[in-house]
Amino acid sequence: MENAVLITIGDEILSGNTIDTNSNFIATELKNIGIKVSQIFTISDEIETIKNAIASAFEMGDLIITTGGLGPTRDDKTKKAIAEFFNDEIALDEATFNHLKNYMERRGRLEILERNREQAFVPTKSTVFQNHFGTAPCMMMEQDGKLLFSLPGVPYEVKPLIKDQIVPFLQEKFKLNYISTRIISVVGIPESILADTIEDWELALPENLALSYLPVGTRVKLRLTANGENETLLQEQLEEEIQKLLPLIKDNVIATSEDKIEKILAEILTERKLTISTAESCTGGELAKMITSVSGSSKYYFGGMIAYATEKKIEILKVKKETVDQFTVVSEQVASEMAKGCQQLFKTNISLSTTGVAGPGKGEDGKDIGTVFYTIRIDNKEITSKLYMPHLERLDFMNFVSQKIIQDLVGLLISE
Amino acid sequence: MENAVLITIGDEILSGNTIDTNSNFIATELKNIGIKVSQIFTISDEIETIKNAIASAFEMGDLIITTGGLGPTRDDKTKKAIAEFFNDEIALDEATFNHLKNYMERRGRLEILERNREQAFVPTKSTVFQNHFGTAPCMMMEQDGKLLFSLPGVPYEVKPLIKDQIVPFLQEKFKLNYISTRIISVVGIPESILADTIEDWELALPENLALSYLPVGTRVKLRLTANGENETLLQEQLEEEIQKLLPLIKDNVIATSEDKIEKILAEILTERKLTISTAESCTGGELAKMITSVSGSSKYYFGGMIAYATEKKIEILKVKKETVDQFTVVSEQVASEMAKGCQQLFKTNISLSTTGVAGPGKGEDGKDIGTVFYTIRIDNKEITSKLYMPHLERLDFMNFVSQKIIQDLVGLLISE
Repeated sequence: MENAVLITIGDEILSGNTIDTNSNFIATELKNIGIKVSQIFTISDEIETIKNAIASAFEMGDLIITTGGLGPTRDDKTKKAIAEFFNDEIALDEATFNHLKNYMERRGRLEILERNREQAFVPTKSTVFQNHFGTAPCMMMEQDGKLLFSLPGVPYEVKPLIKDQIVPFLQEKFKLNYISTRIISVVGIPESILADTIEDWELALPENLALSYLPVGTRVKLRLTANGENETLLQEQLEEEIQKLLPLIKDNVIATSEDKIEKILAEILTERKLTISTAESCTGGELAKMITSVSGSSKYYFGGMIAYATEKKIEILKVKKETVDQFTVVSEQVASEMAKGCQQLFKTNISLSTTGVAGPGKGEDGKDIGTVFYTIRIDNKEITSKLYMPHLERLDFMNFVSQKIIQDLVGLLISE
Repeated sequence: MENAVLITIGDEILSGNTIDTNSNFIATELKNIGIKVSQIFTISDEIETIKNAIASAFEMGDLIITTGGLGPTRDDKTKKAIAEFFNDEIALDEATFNHLKNYMERRGRLEILERNREQAFVPTKSTVFQNHFGTAPCMMMEQDGKLLFSLPGVPYEVKPLIKDQIVPFLQEKFKLNYISTRIISVVGIPESILADTIEDWELALPENLALSYLPVGTRVKLRLTANGENETLLQEQLEEEIQKLLPLIKDNVIATSEDKIEKILAEILTERKLTISTAESCTGGELAKMITSVSGSSKYYFGGMIAYATEKKIEILKVKKETVDQFTVVSEQVASEMAKGCQQLFKTNISLSTTGVAGPGKGEDGKDIGTVFYTIRIDNKEITSKLYMPHLERLDFMNFVSQKIIQDLVGLLISE
């Protein structure tokens, strides 16, 4: 059980209506138990197409996971394709029907519609994994030691099926080891010197642990991977080794568990007991959302203000009207005053502000779209920067700018 | 030129590190000129794998677009695979090299690194489309009337290449018609009665216009599609027909151009000259971001408050301390007071508030994760609702709740 192939079924993805996020989730979960996704087929809801994709996938890997094509309003072509591929028939499965009835009763839908009843029909050779968050069951087929799982397409249903049922099932059946990973972010030390400094530690690592170096810009990421049967033990082992590593390079380590910039920020703020707030204009809440996307952020994020209208910047954030009149609302000066007002309003160590025009369409001040000024204020020091990204679409702009500000802030905090 | 196949190249997508958003963008753009994506292959960066995918793709469609596998730090396996597939060689292209030199000079990177120079090597039979936002060129190969475009993987580079260069090129070369679409959202009238009411109008539609009915919950979406050579004329034609349709069902139409709920909200607020503000706790800025993701939202969105810390809910939003003490911070009463405070702070017709626990990890008040109370306040009327979604991951929770609130608000506004 080494290679998996994913098959995403559904015209809504091919037509550009929906972005496929299931594949990403499944690939990540499989990676944690040492299974690599070698290919993804995204195909339309046609019986022949599905059968062809299954045949190709079985040539490439031992495990196939299909998502989509099992809804109550569809023709259930996926089920038919699977039955045909495995020379099987579709029949009513009593256990699945009872599960479905209970599921719908609990939701107050006492009469089972005919089209829902059809969802309890599955290939007779299949093993059913009941879906606790939707009406389409998950089916498993087995042939020559290879497995096919067929899941519905709704991400809220896919996630628990994969995490709570399929991954534990695969681990049990194939005695798969867990793989736990920690990322240690190191700055301010060249890779070669870092390697020398930690050489003894690296050589003394237990056999089931592996270290790799990933340089990213001015940062070196050390990836420490542990492989073993018991997840809890692995995590303890990783923590133990990191505790041995830290004294060697303590001043250069900015984060020891996470890779995403907002999670690195979380580690730094928590470690140093710093608090933060935001005052946004053109990023429209994206900056706050990025910060609060980290679980536990309520410990350091006190709150934020989205001051879209100029008068709210003046009233609530105490930006001076004269500053707006003299420099326009999209200016270094307004960004700076927003950050100051924000810091006072929320009483935080750090405040971040943005003012700009995300476009398309010109801002009220007539400046070109794609311009943003942002201020990072730490205690009584502050830096204001400008970005000009006219080629970005609105949401990309909001996202890019927010990401950049958090990166800059992390950079400032670690260089202090 | 009817069917396209996309090939996404890159281990970062197969490993679950990155979500593929390029395919979605490309599929949408191709749909607008009548080209349907019939399959997407997501594959790893190996020469044989790439050649096999190209061979399969050419059997399925007339147009192949690959993204990824062209970066300066890669082995450029995509280029090699393409050259091998088309029995071609790779050589330095002077025009591409000059473009690259200019590109890097404008960015102040005067010395062209060797690995950047390599990016100007392309298959000799290829036609190059210069990349104005990155260093990897886009290459086109042609064989038996079929086309292959190879693009870099960075979305900011893919979007302008597709929109400004490839789509116009395809239209010109294959005399492809534009397809323009408008979605008219209709509520409060059953589909059959709607069909009777607009029958005469539908029968009188010009030949290049087509109407389809898409019932979604309590809403019927009328999709009006126009097909023709000139995009501007098509849009005028669509607008003209919608103006004829409106008097027939005026009271039932809630939006005439867009499909997404935040854009429908935009139309309603703009039409009725209403203003809105937000006060968020557990949605952490996502609700504001969803509203401001619409271009022109500054006309009706005055601003928002993210009151993560309880004391900020009290200080800035004027939630009463007694209310928090008596009912806890995650309560109907706090949601209601937040909405009232928000409306007063921003002086808007409408205010929205959320208070809850996004999880994982318990909130400060000890309530279970996944609970949220939200208030929709319109003038001096308000409704507070509760949602309990413990199975959603943090970001999904923030997104789901925000979406639900906007849907509820649209529902309230159209039923008034």
